Amino acid sequence: MAACKDAEFGERTTKDAIEAGHSFQPKFDADGLIPAIVTDAGTGDVLMFAWMNRQALALTIKTGMAHFWSRSRAALWKKGSDSGNTLSVTEMRTDCDQDVVWLRANVDGKGLACHTGRSSCFYRAVPLGDAALQNLQLRFCGEDESKQ
Amino acid sequence: MAACKDAEFGERTTKDAIEAGHSFQPKFDADGLIPAIVTDAGTGDVLMFAWMNRQALALTIKTGMAHFWSRSRAALWKKGSDSGNTLSVTEMRTDCDQDVVWLRANVDGKGLACHTGRSSCFYRAVPLGDAALQNLQLRFCGEDESKQ
Repeated sequence: MAACKDAEFGERTTKDAIEAGHSFQPKFDADGLIPAIVTDAGTGDVLMFAWMNRQALALTIKTGMAHFWSRSRAALWKKGSDSGNTLSVTEMRTDCDQDVVWLRANVDGKGLACHTGRSSCFYRAVPLGDAALQNLQLRFCGEDESKQ
Repeated sequence: MAACKDAEFGERTTKDAIEAGHSFQPKFDADGLIPAIVTDAGTGDVLMFAWMNRQALALTIKTGMAHFWSRSRAALWKKGSDSGNTLSVTEMRTDCDQDVVWLRANVDGKGLACHTGRSSCFYRAVPLGDAALQNLQLRFCGEDESKQ
C-alpha cells in the first residue's frame, strides 16, 4: 500500500472548475475524510455508507476494490478483508461539488455487505407521516421482514 | 414548521438496540447533522447527498418532502422550494448503526435534482486503475457525455 501513501489529488480551485471541469479535486473534510456511498451494481440498492481518507480513495481507484477509513478503529480498512465480502467497484462517480463519491459495486464472497450478516446495511425503513413522527418505530424490510 | 422544532428522536441506547431494534435512534454528529443519501425511486441512481439536522429530519418524516440543512447557508432548506424540483419521498431507510438515512424519492417539477440543472449531482465518473490514479481526470456521463 506504500505506493498509494503519497497519492496527490488535485487542489481545490474555482467553483466553476470543480462543478464543470474534468480535474478530480475531491474535498476532504476537517478530519481528512470524504463520504462514500456504495450501491449494488445490479439492483441499485444502497448497500452501505462509509468514509475514505486520501489513501483509501487512492487505493480504491488503483485497485478497483473498495477501501475505507474506519473512524472507530482509526485505521485503513479494505472492506471484506476478514469476511471475504469484498467490494469490486464497477464505477466510481463524484458529485457536483466533489465532496462525495459514489461507488457502484458487486459484493464478493457471500454477498453480504453489512457486518450484521445482511446483504445491505439499510434493512430498516423509517415510516413517514405525522403519526409516524410521534411513534418513530422502524420497520424491517425485505428478507428480514418475515423474521420479525 | 414550528411544530417540528421540538421533535425528539430516541436517545442512543445499546449497540444491540441500535442495530437490531425497532426504535429509531438516529445519530447526529458533533454539528448536530446526519448524512442523507437520495436515490431516484425509479432508476435507483444516486441523485444527491446532503445533511439533515433534527428539524429537517422531522419535517421530512412528517411531510414526506425532503428537507435538509444547508451547511453553507446555515439554514433549513426545503429542497426545490425555489426551483420547483422538490423531492417526494417514497421510502426512508436507516442503516445498521443509524447514523445515515437513505431516501428513495421522485423529483418533482422538471426532474432536475442538481443545482447545475442536471437530473443527478453525480454526472461525472472517476476512472479506475493504476494509470487513472496518475491522471485523475473525470469523465462526463450519460446525457452530458455527448456535450463534451
